Amino acid sequence: MKTGASVYILGIDPGSAATGYAVLEDVVPVPRVVAVGVIRGGKKALSVRLAKIFSELQDIMQQHRPDEVAVEEVFHARNTKSALVLSHARGVALLAAGLAGAKVYEYPTRTVKQTVTGYGGADKEQVRKMLVATLGSAPESLDASDALAVALCHLRWSEGPVAPERKRS
Amino acid sequence: MKTGASVYILGIDPGSAATGYAVLEDVVPVPRVVAVGVIRGGKKALSVRLAKIFSELQDIMQQHRPDEVAVEEVFHARNTKSALVLSHARGVALLAAGLAGAKVYEYPTRTVKQTVTGYGGADKEQVRKMLVATLGSAPESLDASDALAVALCHLRWSEGPVAPERKRS
Repeated sequence: MKTGASVYILGIDPGSAATGYAVLEDVVPVPRVVAVGVIRGGKKALSVRLAKIFSELQDIMQQHRPDEVAVEEVFHARNTKSALVLSHARGVALLAAGLAGAKVYEYPTRTVKQTVTGYGGADKEQVRKMLVATLGSAPESLDASDALAVALCHLRWSEGPVAPERKRS
Repeated sequence: MKTGASVYILGIDPGSAATGYAVLEDVVPVPRVVAVGVIRGGKKALSVRLAKIFSELQDIMQQHRPDEVAVEEVFHARNTKSALVLSHARGVALLAAGLAGAKVYEYPTRTVKQTVTGYGGADKEQVRKMLVATLGSAPESLDASDALAVALCHLRWSEGPVAPERKRS
């Protein structure tokens, strides 16, 4: 539970089948992982999966009261249809964050990878390994790990100059 | 206000700037337009626009209690980026419908046009003219008119055989 005056950041990696989330507390010298996990929608109808993502994200925000929310941005994808489905889940994530009154930021995937690993073309496993090195641990699930990476990316950029690709949403 | 046993259908044409909606009552010989309009998000941040779409759709559903909700489906768009943004609004519309407990259906744009005008390549103005001819009137706004077309399309297919492209969501 949030007690002090430190900033809580919620990172979200949205997906219609699996949405990763991670709550990071901005403490020195090492940010603390407060919560991390995956919301699974299963194979139910899209409106039912979206309702599950929405309801669980609302629970997470109510429990941890993040000050800022960072979400991965999707510009393009190899598969347009999957990018379209994914954008439905992103819309629901942005909605939940907006309704909770948090400041919402979006970061392109490449910026997240560049910030966390130093290489914009890093794969998910490399991102995960760098999170272990930086934070001491990282979740096994690559969806949850990606969400943690977005949260860490936002924390890094909120300390320094504004990321040129960052977007306030 | 809904009083009888007739079926109410809510048609939604989602967009991040303007989301059209229309409530149609299934009565003979001519379906009755119960409500029709446009939710405008303006130029605010995406999370704020999504919150407005969500909140107004919730109000509409609370007021009219639609039994079934029909939403246009987007397979591809000339502009991928605008299709991605639009999918955020669709996600929020499907969420609102799912939370309200309505049955949710999706129809490809082409099926909507084919059903309403007899021609899958009809433009928005042709769709609007056919709605005037069929229902006696149609809204000036093409976003609202498109939403009315989705509602009418669903009504037509729910009376006859199941549209092959229809998807239960």
